[in-house]
Amino acid sequence: MGRIAVTDGMDEIAVKYLEEMGHEVVLQHYSAEELAAGALSTFDAVVIRSATKMTGEVIHNSSGRNGQLKLIGRAGVGIDNIDLPASTSSRIAVCNTPGASTHAVVELTIGHLLACARHITTGDRTLRAGEWAKKQLRGTELSGKRLGLIGFGRIAQGVGQAARALGMTLHTYDPYLPAEVAADQHCQLHDEIDEVFRLCTHISIHCNLTEETHHLVNAKRLEMMPGIGIDGVPCGNHIVNCARGGIVDEVALLKALESGIIASAALDVFEKEPTLDNPIIHHRNFHGTPHIGAATIEAQTRIGEEMAALLNDFFDGKKPKSIINPEIF
Amino acid sequence: MGRIAVTDGMDEIAVKYLEEMGHEVVLQHYSAEELAAGALSTFDAVVIRSATKMTGEVIHNSSGRNGQLKLIGRAGVGIDNIDLPASTSSRIAVCNTPGASTHAVVELTIGHLLACARHITTGDRTLRAGEWAKKQLRGTELSGKRLGLIGFGRIAQGVGQAARALGMTLHTYDPYLPAEVAADQHCQLHDEIDEVFRLCTHISIHCNLTEETHHLVNAKRLEMMPGIGIDGVPCGNHIVNCARGGIVDEVALLKALESGIIASAALDVFEKEPTLDNPIIHHRNFHGTPHIGAATIEAQTRIGEEMAALLNDFFDGKKPKSIINPEIF
Repeated sequence: MGRIAVTDGMDEIAVKYLEEMGHEVVLQHYSAEELAAGALSTFDAVVIRSATKMTGEVIHNSSGRNGQLKLIGRAGVGIDNIDLPASTSSRIAVCNTPGASTHAVVELTIGHLLACARHITTGDRTLRAGEWAKKQLRGTELSGKRLGLIGFGRIAQGVGQAARALGMTLHTYDPYLPAEVAADQHCQLHDEIDEVFRLCTHISIHCNLTEETHHLVNAKRLEMMPGIGIDGVPCGNHIVNCARGGIVDEVALLKALESGIIASAALDVFEKEPTLDNPIIHHRNFHGTPHIGAATIEAQTRIGEEMAALLNDFFDGKKPKSIINPEIF
Repeated sequence: MGRIAVTDGMDEIAVKYLEEMGHEVVLQHYSAEELAAGALSTFDAVVIRSATKMTGEVIHNSSGRNGQLKLIGRAGVGIDNIDLPASTSSRIAVCNTPGASTHAVVELTIGHLLACARHITTGDRTLRAGEWAKKQLRGTELSGKRLGLIGFGRIAQGVGQAARALGMTLHTYDPYLPAEVAADQHCQLHDEIDEVFRLCTHISIHCNLTEETHHLVNAKRLEMMPGIGIDGVPCGNHIVNCARGGIVDEVALLKALESGIIASAALDVFEKEPTLDNPIIHHRNFHGTPHIGAATIEAQTRIGEEMAALLNDFFDGKKPKSIINPEIF
């Protein structure tokens, strides 16, 4: 039995399940100051999403001599808000729910790619403003174009499958990917990321945010994009990011939208979130959503189920399946 | 050789091709009054899109004793702006370009379905208004849901294929469809349209506008929709129309949006176009585009190619392949 803090919310059914299994579940969000002051020290486990930042200081003040925290469960995928080395040296297990939100992000990404190519948000915005902008809103088709996927994990593979059904061909850069995985998915794997930018009019980001991927989409690479599809259609260049803010250099992207190098861009994630005074969100050829990639009822239910199961395993003395730092066991 | 009026625009390459073949091409839009006064009487053929209305009066005053018009070419699919019986009795051939815009409409429809399910336009609108509405914009996935296709021609079949790739199952009502076509496409064909509304949380319209289909989507049928997906998810009901205005009763749809019977609706086509003072376009859970289903560079190029080829065939004395009223030959 464990005492579990849930700081960024969790599916109700999962909370009930954990309580029925005999665990104590406390649903409460803490400020950065409260966390640093050891708010989590009386818990055995904490379940977070992206809002709670598990810094080295928070971890230090929640475990070892200072507390009893033994597990950080990330309800979702990205663990860039968790200091992993600090967790490992404090012998805190870090787990996530890697598969639960895959399809939700896949669908949002395809939605953003289509909204870019067909001016869907601009169409709606001009209608609401009393304009019938039919003539100005000629778009292009995804069919016949090359889609460049930066990173080729679960989500990118799902996006690739749907994009192929619409008639796109797939290119990827993923230095961690076995070549046969790309081949199985009819995706051309490149050794150089620049090659993907040189070939593809449509780029979608599906990697983690790390030092290596910070501002990986920059002015130089945006300028490499071809603007003309492999089918000869002058479709312009399109960028979609439903992965993590910070991978795309937003200042460079806005400049590229202004100069026309980029015809459209859609971001679900931003360098700073919430993003409220960001000039890019007001550009005509930009559209955005407020980090809702995993925000479907289905994904949140699956995340809750996976998280409840792994917490239960952990308190049963089993090694959770999705542990990120297995070396602590 | 013929004298051809192009009243709603046509792809440049197609115009050049026709001129090179020795035809005279006049690019000019005429008002309803000019058309009725016989503006087309000195032409052998007219190429229209949806803006030019070929009424019985226009046809009468352009052909027979009053003029030399012998062919109406519709650059696109829908021929609801052409009086077909009047054309036939005046021995005017009516042709369209049925396949050229299929994929463009397929992609817009999938884009609208995803934008509905994931609040893409609302996400962008709230961001631009300085709101970070992440918590209010939880959506649902298309995967696992039933898609009801009203009409199962080329476009619906393309939409069905893409929707299946995303994990939807397909249902259709199409009284003109051979059962084996639906079966080949893994789509369940129903004898009663009401059955499709009873089963499906997501409905997309893909039929022609006729007397029979006018206000086919009405208050009674919207109320039949289940609101809960076959996967148990309370996704609400969603309506997309990229076919023709008038098939959906807009007053009934707005009421259903207001009462929550319909969770979201997207229209590319409206009962009155341009639609500027239509209250539905301001509803939070509505989004629209200004009749841009076929508005892609690719589709307009293909339409131009098909139209140029069929005009050339016609002036060569051949029966055009896509003739709607072959009985005149």
